[in-house]
Amino acid sequence: MAGKFFSMRNLKFLLYEVFDTAALTKAPYYEQHNQKAFDLVLDAAAKIGQKKFYPLFEEMDRKPPYLENGQVKVHPAVRDIMKESGDGGWIGATFPEAWGGEQLPHILHCACHLITSSANYSAGVYAELTTGAARLIHSFASDDLKNKYLPNMMSGKWQGTMALTEPQAGSSLSDITTTAYPTDQGYYRLKGTKVFISAGDHDGVDNVVHMLLARIEGAPPGVKGISLFLVPKLRVEGPGKLASNDVSVSQVFHKMGYRGAPITELSFGDKDDCRAFLVGEPNRGLMYMFQMMNGARIGVGLGATAIASAAYYASLEYCRTRPQGRRLNQKDPNTPQVAIIEHPDVRRMLLFQRAVVEGSEGLLMQCALYEDLQHISPKEQHAKYELLLDLLTPMAKTYPSEMAILSTSQAIQCLGGYGYCEDFPVEQHFRDCRIHPIHEGTTGIQGMDLLGRKVVMKDGQAFKLFLEEARATIAQAQGLTSVAPLAQKLEAALTHLEQITRQLVGSAVTKGAEVFLADATLYLEMFGIIAIAWQWLRQAIVAQKALDGNAKAADQNFYQGKLVTADYFFAYELPKTQYLAQRLTDGNPLTAKMESSHFND
Amino acid sequence: MAGKFFSMRNLKFLLYEVFDTAALTKAPYYEQHNQKAFDLVLDAAAKIGQKKFYPLFEEMDRKPPYLENGQVKVHPAVRDIMKESGDGGWIGATFPEAWGGEQLPHILHCACHLITSSANYSAGVYAELTTGAARLIHSFASDDLKNKYLPNMMSGKWQGTMALTEPQAGSSLSDITTTAYPTDQGYYRLKGTKVFISAGDHDGVDNVVHMLLARIEGAPPGVKGISLFLVPKLRVEGPGKLASNDVSVSQVFHKMGYRGAPITELSFGDKDDCRAFLVGEPNRGLMYMFQMMNGARIGVGLGATAIASAAYYASLEYCRTRPQGRRLNQKDPNTPQVAIIEHPDVRRMLLFQRAVVEGSEGLLMQCALYEDLQHISPKEQHAKYELLLDLLTPMAKTYPSEMAILSTSQAIQCLGGYGYCEDFPVEQHFRDCRIHPIHEGTTGIQGMDLLGRKVVMKDGQAFKLFLEEARATIAQAQGLTSVAPLAQKLEAALTHLEQITRQLVGSAVTKGAEVFLADATLYLEMFGIIAIAWQWLRQAIVAQKALDGNAKAADQNFYQGKLVTADYFFAYELPKTQYLAQRLTDGNPLTAKMESSHFND
Repeated sequence: MAGKFFSMRNLKFLLYEVFDTAALTKAPYYEQHNQKAFDLVLDAAAKIGQKKFYPLFEEMDRKPPYLENGQVKVHPAVRDIMKESGDGGWIGATFPEAWGGEQLPHILHCACHLITSSANYSAGVYAELTTGAARLIHSFASDDLKNKYLPNMMSGKWQGTMALTEPQAGSSLSDITTTAYPTDQGYYRLKGTKVFISAGDHDGVDNVVHMLLARIEGAPPGVKGISLFLVPKLRVEGPGKLASNDVSVSQVFHKMGYRGAPITELSFGDKDDCRAFLVGEPNRGLMYMFQMMNGARIGVGLGATAIASAAYYASLEYCRTRPQGRRLNQKDPNTPQVAIIEHPDVRRMLLFQRAVVEGSEGLLMQCALYEDLQHISPKEQHAKYELLLDLLTPMAKTYPSEMAILSTSQAIQCLGGYGYCEDFPVEQHFRDCRIHPIHEGTTGIQGMDLLGRKVVMKDGQAFKLFLEEARATIAQAQGLTSVAPLAQKLEAALTHLEQITRQLVGSAVTKGAEVFLADATLYLEMFGIIAIAWQWLRQAIVAQKALDGNAKAADQNFYQGKLVTADYFFAYELPKTQYLAQRLTDGNPLTAKMESSHFND
Repeated sequence: MAGKFFSMRNLKFLLYEVFDTAALTKAPYYEQHNQKAFDLVLDAAAKIGQKKFYPLFEEMDRKPPYLENGQVKVHPAVRDIMKESGDGGWIGATFPEAWGGEQLPHILHCACHLITSSANYSAGVYAELTTGAARLIHSFASDDLKNKYLPNMMSGKWQGTMALTEPQAGSSLSDITTTAYPTDQGYYRLKGTKVFISAGDHDGVDNVVHMLLARIEGAPPGVKGISLFLVPKLRVEGPGKLASNDVSVSQVFHKMGYRGAPITELSFGDKDDCRAFLVGEPNRGLMYMFQMMNGARIGVGLGATAIASAAYYASLEYCRTRPQGRRLNQKDPNTPQVAIIEHPDVRRMLLFQRAVVEGSEGLLMQCALYEDLQHISPKEQHAKYELLLDLLTPMAKTYPSEMAILSTSQAIQCLGGYGYCEDFPVEQHFRDCRIHPIHEGTTGIQGMDLLGRKVVMKDGQAFKLFLEEARATIAQAQGLTSVAPLAQKLEAALTHLEQITRQLVGSAVTKGAEVFLADATLYLEMFGIIAIAWQWLRQAIVAQKALDGNAKAADQNFYQGKLVTADYFFAYELPKTQYLAQRLTDGNPLTAKMESSHFND
C-alpha cells in the first residue's frame, strides 16, 4: 500500500512554476487564499488519496456493485467517501462561499482531483458527478429547487448524476424519447428509460438527484425540443419529508473496468408517479447541459490522466528495481544484471508514459486556469477565455483518454508477464481507463465537435486565440538554446495545422459535410498532439530557466527530467502529426464514398 | 452463439487465390492431398470452432483455472478438447505420416488454427503447445525418448510445454539457473524453478511433458551453457508404468485475460527426485529451443490475429444493426436513424480492423508457405526460404500482437458503452490479446532480434531476399491501374527502408551497439507496416484481376472490399512509416544517453 501514484513535486511545478496559480489570489474572488493555504489543500488531498482511496483500489474492483431487491449495493466505504467529500468541502470546492463552497480556483481543484483519481478513479467519481449536477442546479435552477436539493448534495448525503443516454440514443441525443407530461401542479410527469447512468443509484447515499434530459410532450423534434429536468429518486415534499418518486433500477452493467462505480439503467414513471422539475426554460436543456457536459468531458480527460499517472509510477518503480539483462556494451554473463531502467527501450516506454501524463496534466490545468481567468478577468476578456476553453475541451477530453490506453499498456509491457497478472495494479489501470474514449461523447463525437463546430465558430476566433497563445509560448523560448529547437518544431506544426485547417474547412463547401468531417477524428488527434507539444514547450522553458538560475541541487534531476521528456515528446510524438497531415490532405474520401456492402463476403 | 468470428471466404481467398496452396500437392511430400481434401479439413476446423470452442469462450474466461491440492484444475471441457485434438489429427497435422501425422501443409494448418483460435484462443493453446513440444522431441530427441513420450502427446493424452522463463530470468535467458546434475543412470537430477509456464499443469491430461532449458552443473556461463531437457511430470519407467517425477506447482497466476489456460509456476526437484533427460547435445539447448520458439512466436502472432478477427466480426455485426444518428447530409430528425456502418468514422474503425486482421493473416500464411516450400524445394533453395522465414518471424509475431490491442480497442469503440460491458465479447478480446506482445519474447526483444541479428545476418542476405520478394509483387501490379499507385507507394517505402537500414547498421560501428539498437522497436514497427503493405498489395492485385476477369456476382462485394481495405491501408497506415523513419534517423540518442536519475523527482 506504499505505492506512489502521483508526484507532488510535479503538480507543484505545474501549479506554481508553470501556471503561477498563486497570482490568482491577487484577484478579489480568491483573495482569502494564499499559496500556503493551497499547499494545505494539496496535502489534504494527498492524505485522502493515500489513506482512503488507494487502499480500496483493488477491493472495489474485485467486489463490484450489484443489484439486490431493486437497490444497487456498492462497497460500504462509498458512504464514508461521500461523507468525507462533503464534510471536507471537496464537492463544493470551487463553489462560491455564499453557497457553502470553498471558492477555490479550478486549477487547484484540478490538481487535487488528479491526486485522488490516481489513487482510485472509481472512488472519486461519486463526488465528481455530484459536483457537476450541483453546479447545474446552482446555475440554472429556481431558488426553490436549489434550497430543496443543493445542501444535501454539497454535504455528500445525496448523489448527483447526469442522465442523458437512452437505449436508442447514445451519441445521437436528438433522438431521446423520454417524455415529460405537463401538469398544473408545478411539475411534469416523466416516462422513459435512461442507460449507462454513472452512480445512477446506490446505497452509499440517502437519495439520488438526476439532472435529466427529456422532451416536453409536443416539443419540436431534434435537439431543439430537449429540456432539462431535476428528477430525484426521493422527492422533497416538505422539510425533511421525502417520498418515493417512481424511479427504478432495471440493470447494473457488468464492466471490464471502472468497476468501483455502478453504471445503471434506470426506469422513470413505471407507476405514472415520477415527478420531474423543469430547470430553466423549456427546450433549452441541451444548452444548459453542455455546462455540465463540458466539465464532465474535462473530468474524463482528467480521470484518464490520473489512471495513466498511477500506472506510470507503478511501472517506474518496477523498472528501477527489477534486474534483467545487461547493457549492450556489457556482454559478460558473469557480471550482475542491471535494473531494466538502464535499457534504452525501457526508458523509451517510461518517457512515453511520462510525456503523456505530464503533458496531459499541463493541458488540463491550462483549461482549469482559463476557467479561473474567466471568473476574475474584466468582462471584455471573458469571451476570450471561454472560447479557448471551448476549443480545447475536445483535446483535453480525448488526448488523455486515447493515450491512456497506450500509456497503461506500456506500463504493462514494462512489467512483462507480471504486468498481465492481478498481483500488480497495472492490468486494472489498463481496464479502468478503457471507458474514457467512450463516455461523455465518444472520440468520434469529439472530433466532429472540434472540426465541425469549435474551429469554425465565430469566424475561427477560438482557433486564432489558440494560435496566439501557443505563439506567445514560442516567443518565450527565444534565447534558451536547449528549448529553442523545440519551439521551432512547434511553430512548424502550428503552420501546418493552419494550412490543413484552412484546406479542410474549405472542403466543407466544395465536397460537402460528410467528406469534410470524415476524418475529424484524425484532425482531433493531430490537434491534440500539438496542444500537448505546446504544454511541453511551456514546461521545458520553465525547467531550463530554473536550471540556468538557482535551482536547488535536489531539483536538478527533476528539471533535467522535464527537459528529457520534452525532448522525447518532440522527437517521438510530434512527428506523428506529419502522417496525420498527409492523410488529412490526400484527397481520397474512401470512407465516405465506399459502399457498406463492401464489408460483405 | 451464432456469432461470426472468421471468414471462410477470406481464408480460401488467401489459401487458393493469393498463395496457390493447391499447387503444393504437386510435390511428392503433399501428393496424397488435393484442394477438395483441404476444404474438408477447413470445414472440420470450422465445425470444431463453432461447436466446441466458441460455446466455451465466455465460460472459460469466467471460470479460470485454480490450484487445488497441488493440482491445477481447468474447465472440464479441456479433456474433451485435447482428445479431439489428438483423435482428429490436429496435434500432428503437419507431422510426417511416419510419425502418425497428417503431413498437411503448414499454410493449411495456419488457416485451421486461425479458425479455432478466433473461436476461443485459450482453448486452442493446449494442443498448440503440445504440437510444438512434440516437434522438438521429434527433431532432436533420442528414439527412446520419442517412443516413450511422443505417442501420448500426439493423441492428446499428455500435454507438452516449453519451460524457459525463471523468476530472475525472463527476457535474459542467459541468466537461467535451473541446474541439471549428471548421474550415471542415463538421466540428470534437476533442481530449479520455472515461471509463466503455459499449461504447465492441469487435470485435462494424464501427464505433462516439459521441454525445459537448464544448465548442466559446471556448464559455461551465459547462453553457451544452456541445455535442453525433457522433464515429465510423470516419468515412464516401463511399458504403461509411470512414476511421479518430483515436479510441483507452486502457483497459478491470475491474469487479466487469456484466462482459459493456466499459467503456472513450477518447482522441480524439491525432493531431489526430479529426473531430466537430455535432448540432443549438451550446451546446445538454446539452438534447439529456437525451433520451438520460432514456431511459438508465429503462433503468438496468429493468436493475436485470430482474436482481432473475432472482435472485428463482432463489431461489424453490431455496426450493421445498430441504428444511431443520421448521415451528415440528412439533418432532419424526423427521418429514421441509420445503421452506424453508414458513418465514415465507423467505417474507418472497421476498415482499420479488417486491414490489421487480413493483412496479418496474409503475412502469417506467407510465413507458413515459406516453411512448406522449404520442405518441398530442391536443397539449394532451402536456405532462401529459411532466411525469409527467419527474417519475417519478428514481424509475424509483433505486428499482429501490437496491433491487436488497437484493433480490439476499436472494436470496443464501435460498440460504445456496450463494448465495455461483459454482455458483448469484445471486452474479453481486448483483455485476451494483451498477453501477446509479452510472451515468447517481448516486442523489445523482437526488435533487437530483427535489427541486431536478422537484417545483418549472412551479410544482409535475408533482407535482400525480402526486398526481392516484395519487388516481385510490385512488378505484378504493372498495368493494373487501380493498384499500380499502391505499388509505387510500396516501392517508395522499401527504398526508404533500405536507406534507413543502411544508416542504422552503419551506426552500429560509429555509435556503438546501444545507440544502434535503442529504437529497434520502432524499426520493427516500420518494417512490420511495410511487410503488411506488401501483403495488401498481393491481395489487391488478385482482387483487381478477379474483378477484371470473370468474378461471380456474389464475389463482387468481397473483391471490392479487398480493394477498399488495401486503399485504406496505403492511405492511413503506410504513412506511419514516415514518422518512424524521421525518428529513426534524427540522430538524437536521448534514451541511450539520458541518466536514469532523470526519472527522479
